[in-house]
Parts: sequence; structure tokens; C-alpha cells
Amino acid sequence: MVNETVLKNFFKYVDENQDHYVDRLREAVAIPSVSSDPDRREDVFRMGNWLIELFKKLGISYEAVDVGNHVMSGKTLKLPPILLGSYGNDPKKKTILVYGHYDVQPALLEDGWNSDPWKLVEDSTGRLVGRGSSDDKGPIIGWLNAIEAHQKIGVEFPVNLKICFEGMEENGSEGLDDLIAREADKYFKCVDAVCISDNYWLGVTKPCLTYGLRGISYFNITVSGPGRDLHSGVFGGTVYEPMTDLIILFSKLVTPNGKILIPGINDDVAELKDEEMETYRSIEFKLEELQSAIESKTNIYDNETQTLQARWRYPSLSIHGIEGAFSAPGVKTVLPCKVSGKFSIRSVPNMDPDKITACVDKFLREEFGKLGSENKLQVECVHGAKPWVSSPDHWNFVAAANAVEKVFNCKPDLTREGGSIPVTLTFQDALNKNVLLLPMGRGDDGAHSTNEKLDRHNYTEGIKLLGTYLHEVAAIKST
Amino acid sequence: MVNETVLKNFFKYVDENQDHYVDRLREAVAIPSVSSDPDRREDVFRMGNWLIELFKKLGISYEAVDVGNHVMSGKTLKLPPILLGSYGNDPKKKTILVYGHYDVQPALLEDGWNSDPWKLVEDSTGRLVGRGSSDDKGPIIGWLNAIEAHQKIGVEFPVNLKICFEGMEENGSEGLDDLIAREADKYFKCVDAVCISDNYWLGVTKPCLTYGLRGISYFNITVSGPGRDLHSGVFGGTVYEPMTDLIILFSKLVTPNGKILIPGINDDVAELKDEEMETYRSIEFKLEELQSAIESKTNIYDNETQTLQARWRYPSLSIHGIEGAFSAPGVKTVLPCKVSGKFSIRSVPNMDPDKITACVDKFLREEFGKLGSENKLQVECVHGAKPWVSSPDHWNFVAAANAVEKVFNCKPDLTREGGSIPVTLTFQDALNKNVLLLPMGRGDDGAHSTNEKLDRHNYTEGIKLLGTYLHEVAAIKST
Ligand SMILES: [Zn+2]
Ligand SMILES: [Zn+2]
Ligand SMILES: [Zn+2]
Ligand SMILES: [Zn+2]
Repeated sequence: MVNETVLKNFFKYVDENQDHYVDRLREAVAIPSVSSDPDRREDVFRMGNWLIELFKKLGISYEAVDVGNHVMSGKTLKLPPILLGSYGNDPKKKTILVYGHYDVQPALLEDGWNSDPWKLVEDSTGRLVGRGSSDDKGPIIGWLNAIEAHQKIGVEFPVNLKICFEGMEENGSEGLDDLIAREADKYFKCVDAVCISDNYWLGVTKPCLTYGLRGISYFNITVSGPGRDLHSGVFGGTVYEPMTDLIILFSKLVTPNGKILIPGINDDVAELKDEEMETYRSIEFKLEELQSAIESKTNIYDNETQTLQARWRYPSLSIHGIEGAFSAPGVKTVLPCKVSGKFSIRSVPNMDPDKITACVDKFLREEFGKLGSENKLQVECVHGAKPWVSSPDHWNFVAAANAVEKVFNCKPDLTREGGSIPVTLTFQDALNKNVLLLPMGRGDDGAHSTNEKLDRHNYTEGIKLLGTYLHEVAAIKST
Repeated sequence: MVNETVLKNFFKYVDENQDHYVDRLREAVAIPSVSSDPDRREDVFRMGNWLIELFKKLGISYEAVDVGNHVMSGKTLKLPPILLGSYGNDPKKKTILVYGHYDVQPALLEDGWNSDPWKLVEDSTGRLVGRGSSDDKGPIIGWLNAIEAHQKIGVEFPVNLKICFEGMEENGSEGLDDLIAREADKYFKCVDAVCISDNYWLGVTKPCLTYGLRGISYFNITVSGPGRDLHSGVFGGTVYEPMTDLIILFSKLVTPNGKILIPGINDDVAELKDEEMETYRSIEFKLEELQSAIESKTNIYDNETQTLQARWRYPSLSIHGIEGAFSAPGVKTVLPCKVSGKFSIRSVPNMDPDKITACVDKFLREEFGKLGSENKLQVECVHGAKPWVSSPDHWNFVAAANAVEKVFNCKPDLTREGGSIPVTLTFQDALNKNVLLLPMGRGDDGAHSTNEKLDRHNYTEGIKLLGTYLHEVAAIKST
């Protein structure tokens, strides 16, 4: 049982120190740690050092792991360190691994920000606006604030905490997978469960726990024929045009309302069970939110449940574009000699990337054969990531649900997401432990967009949530 | 009857003055009169003045018509003058209008030229390499050389010549159509027939007369839905994707082997008559030439006649590309909110641009309706030009064929072209006179490409051809 007095004191301390936490977040936002910009690499290192200083202050033992160099825009750059931290080492306590990232997306005032993206400002409704506020500086500082609060109120920390903060998440997480694999039996050995706070509530009022992510298989389909681009006046009608072939192939992939037509692709989609169906009833989500996000009423389904299921638990196929064809404004009568069409399939349990590739390859080759074209076809899966689904019945999730009830006085929504967060699956596969996604921010935070914000309420209650979750973890039976 | 002695003297003079003509071409090539480059506009004017000096020297009365300004790359630029020249005014003679252009395509050594594009050099096989040598400085100087030769040998010029040389052909011929319309009943009033030397032999050994060009209808098909680009992970499967709709529409336009599937499009294609079929038998053209030009063996037809007919006398449809979709190398999981697909139909007699647009519009709207998509469709014909076909039995063509026989000792091929030369139709419609395309260069001159050349043989014999054609015009019965 969690000691309610302890929680009460913890909550009180957090409430009273809000402004201190906001100042701390302001300091972090002021460091433009953009991992995808070679000119900002120094700032990513600065941000790592800023965290190390906080680790030291809080008595977190740490290692700043050098994971080598990488090449970007033709330059060889040092990768920012992956910070591994340890707080507590009591064999009687559970050990929780928390992951987050200290790098951020690019941001320029000219992109449409209402204020300098590197200066955290609070508006009249309590929105803390600044790049990285919600993704992911608020959450990672949230963990550290919770530790500090426990020290200040003189309460023992309920678990052993392992920390993994990286500085390359927005740029492919270079070096992370290798490190996790290398440390699985060492640094990560005693971990009982994993908690990642790097996603968002589905909406704007109700907290959620996230237990599933779609995978992705990204394909590059190249049709080539002539040795050079041709003039359509001179050659149109006399040669097999790669563009015509590609368009016909692409037209056979998916229907306008999203049904994938590639044989075999839908075979492994997990059946919808009654208990999963049940979880959709209470979820806070309105079609209007989707329509507002897409800025149109071109949604396929007229109800929330089918919409969420289409996003989370059924595969989808999107055609992204064509490389090698004319793509500029205006008029050009080119007959492109080689075109690469790009599409991706968002996959769900129990679909497998290798089988997806095999189905796509077989289908496209067969369909290409039917065209009778003299052109050449190449089918390539350039990126494959498995879908992820966790068990929301696991004690890790139950502890988090209990914490939500104590902080927010409501049961969390059980959500999945349509996109992927690759590290989730990496941790689950490498450590073979339950992974929980426990978001701090709201669905409208605009993580990769202009005017990214974290509501002060989410930040403060989020700190409470992360701390309370660890108390619930300590109290729960882990069998 | 043409006076054979006159021709003999004319030919002899041309042969003896070859080097003088090459020097003259060298001077012209040295002026980089690139009409599409604002920084070269002054050079286009310089080239106009260079021609004016030659007009004066040859006693050609002229007007350099100022056709105003235009805006290019945000700058207001003066349009180069259209040079109208008159040589001879004898009411007993026929009047022939010759058209050509003194501007050229851009050229940079770095593009892959083997020598400075603005310095005419002659290689060991007699190729005169330089930008504009074949397109179209060689031909326009050819007419003037023919005049000069007649003066030198003291022979009366056989016709009244009207000259129309413009400096904007490679950049949309701005101002030309208006001028032609305006002068149709004035400056161009007495014209009996038109001759344009601005295209090429089909191959490399046999001269041709060109009597047909395909038209073009260029379409922009826009499908739009969401108000902004979306992330395929979050939204894939829940919204109607504009790209899916566009791809399906585009797949219904044409088969891989070039059959247009839009109902009504093929209805107005002129029937293939026996006499036209006859003209294909003798044409100098080998499939290998096509394969060498396209650098592959992806030709649709296995015989020359069908290939030429597909290029010249049947419509074709080419899909050029898509604006608004992902088109760069690499991977991007965007779901584009608005995509504009571009395709064009090359039209042939007796197809009409308005009817083509109507067929395309109707068909695409019907097919879009079948998709059941909530997205919006917009169909736009952004450019429509009619096909052109002339009568090769007209005295203008017969005179030219006679001239080819006298200069080259062979009958010319009767060809058409798959592309369009808009001024052809403009002259025919405005003056209601027969228009003949009488090329000087070979099919491999590389007019808009690197290392553009005009063979010395084509230049010299071309001067003879243009002069002889005028003698044949004078001698032939024009009824
Ligand atoms: Zn993040
Ligand atoms: Zn992010
Ligand atoms: Zn030209
Ligand atoms: Zn040209």
C-alpha cells in the first residue's frame, strides 16, 4: 500500500515549487539542442552537460557513454553521449528504467512561431511555449524533479531508478540500439520494467497509458527503361513509359477508403477480442478532434471506434510520392526514364516485416508481369520496423493506472498510436521486460510543429504522476 | 523552268565561299543570345543588331519591331525586336515568307560540352560545334548567304522575300502571335507561301520535308483533402488520401503500350489513307536509331512504320509527374494533403483541344465519382495547341522536293514530327497560306543538348537548298 501521507507531502511540495520547475525547464529550452543540425551539435553536448550537472546535484551516479562519430551532410560529427544514470541500489526495491531524450526538433522564428522558440514563455492560459517543452525536455526533467522533491521532503525514494537519456532521438537514435544490446546484461540487468514518457494524451483532458504502436515497412519501387529522360513529343507513344507502369502498379495497392489490396497482407492482423473492444467505449476522443487535426472532413469513418481502430490496430498503406518524375510547379513535357515510387505500410500485431516484404514483392512482380512492359522493376523494402503491443494487465500498467487515479481522479484511457517509437520495441526485445508509455503532454502540444507547448498543469501534475507511478510500482505485487 | 546555269554558278559560288560562311556562323555563335537568361538579354539584342548590319549590307529593307516588355524572374525586361525584312518587291514574282529565330538555348561548358559552346569549332569530320549552330543560326544565316551569293554572281533573286526573325523562340515567342495577327493584312499581305527552316532531318543522311506536327493538351489534375500535410502513422487509414485517389485516376488514362483509355479521345483521329501509308515505305529510319536515342530497347513496336505512325499520326498520353507529393531521395512518411498530377496528350488531326479537354474532364469526374472519396477534384487544361498538317501536294512542297532532288540527288522523305512548333500553326491560321518546314540540320544535331552541331555539309548544301527552293518556287505553277 502506498503511504498516502507521503504522497500528500510530495504533491504539496510539487505545487509549491512549480515556478522553480518552470525555471528549470526554461533553462533547458534555452539550449537549442537540435540533433539534426550540424551547427547545433555543440548545443546538444551542452544540454547533455546541463543534465550531468543536475545528476551530480541530485546524487545520481552516471556514465556519459561515448558512442562514437557519424557522418551528416558530409561532415564527421561526434555523437552526443547517451547518459546512463543510477539512483538507488536497494536489492529489496524494484528497478525501473526510464528513457527520454534531450535533443529536440529544429525551430526557427520564421517558421511561424509567435515567440522565440528558445525562450520559454507562459501565456495567459498557462501554456509553456518553447521548443522541446513537451518533446521531451518536460518529461525528462519531470523524473529529476520528482527525485529532488523526495529529497526535499525527506522521503525515501520508492524504487531503484535506471535512467537512459539520449541526444539523438530526433535524428535516428544513432548508437542507441547497439548500446542497449551491449548493456542488456550489464547496466540494464536488474531492470524489472521500463517506462517511457515521450508521447501524448490522445486528447486534451484525459490522461492515458499507451500499450501499442504500429510498425512500418517502407518501400521503394523503381521502374526504369530508357537510358535518359525523353521528350514526350518525340517519343510519346513509341516507348514503354516507366511512369505509366508505376502508376498502374500503385493503383493496385489500396482502395480510396484504405483497404489494402495486396494478397496476404491482412492475414496476420490480430483478431479483435471483446476485451479490447471494451476499451474503446470509454476513450476520450471525438471525430471533431480528428477533423480539426486534419483541417477537413475527409475522414473515412463516421464514428470514433472505427477511426481509432483504423489508426491503431489495423494496417494502412500510404503512397508518399515519386522520385525522378516532374514535381515542380508549372509545365514540363518530360518522359522520365526512371521513377521510384515510395509507399509504406503501417503494420499491426501479428504482422511481420519479412512476410510483408515477401507479399509486396510477389504481388508487384506478378502485376508488373501482366503489364507486358519492356521496362524493369525493382522492389525494395528500405526500412522495416515491427509493430509493438504490450499487455495493459501487467503490473507496470496497473501501477501507472493507479497513479493516474490518484493524481487526476480518473481512470486513464488505454491507447495505442498509429506511428512508431522504435526504442519501445528495442527495450522490450533486448530486456524482455514490460514497457509502458506514460505520456506527460496533451494531444495538441505540437511536438514537431511550431509553437510547441507543454501546459503548466500537465507539467506539474506530470511530475506528481511520474513520482506516484514509482510509489505504485513499489507497492504492487509483481507476479 | 529553272535556269540550270544559274544554279550551277550559284552552287559553285557557295562551294568556293564555304569558309566565309563558316566564319559568319562563328561570329553569330560567339554572341550568347540566350533568351531565357535575364543576364543574357543584352546579347540577344546584340545578335539582333548583328543581323540588322547584315540586312543593311545586303540591301534588305527592314523594321526592328519593338514588342514591349515582359516580366521574367521578377524583373521587367525589354523584349528583343522581331526583325521584319523585305527583299524585292516585284509584283510579277511570288512572295515567300521565311521565319527563323536568332535566340538560342542556354549552354555551359560544365554541362558536358567538349569545348566552349560560344566558340564555333570544326572537328575532323566537319561538324561545326557550338550553341545555336543548328538551332537556328545556321538556317537563318543560310537565307542571307543565299541572297549574298545571288548578288555576287550577278543573278536576279527569283522571288520577293519577306523575312521574320524573332529573338524569343526558346522562351515562349512572346509578342510574336500578336505581331503576326496585326501584320497579317499589312506586312504579310502579299505572302504566297511560308517556309520555316527550324527543324531536322529524321535521320542523318536523307533530307526531308516536314508536313505535320502533333498538338498538345497539357493537364493539371488536383486532388485535395486535408488542410495540411499529415503524418501517415497518425492518420494513415483514417482519412481519404489525395495521393491514392490521384494514382487510381491516373491508372485509368493509358495502357502500358500507349493506348489512350479516355472515351472519345481516339474518335477524331484521321483515318490512315493508302497514299499516306505509301509515304512510310521509302522513309529513311531504322528502329536502331530509336533505340540509340532512347538508350534502351523498350520500344513498343517492332517495326519502323508503326513506330513512326505512333510518333506522328496517332495521339499519345504521357504522365509527367506529381506536384505536392514527396519527390526527394530518401524516406519521408508524409501523407500529402494536395497533389497535382500532370499529364499531356499529344494530339493529331482532326482532334480539337476543346473536345479533348471536354473528354478528359468528363471521364475524370466520372471516375472520381466512382471512388467514393470525400476529397475534391479539379481538372484543368493549362495549355492547348492544335495539331498541324499540311498538304505535301501543294506547289510549295513540290518546289522544295524539286530543290532537294537538284541539291542532294534524291527524293526527300515526307515526315511529320511528334512535338509542336507553335509558330507553324500561327502562320497558317493567320495568313491562310501553305507552310513548309524545310530543315537544314540532321536528326543528331542535338539542338537543345550539349555539343550542338551543324555539319559543314549540311550548312553548305543547306544554303544551296534554300536558294534552289526559291528558284523552284519561282518556276512552278501556283494553281
Ligand atoms: Zn520525443
Ligand atoms: Zn520528437
Ligand atoms: Zn529552333
Ligand atoms: Zn530550339
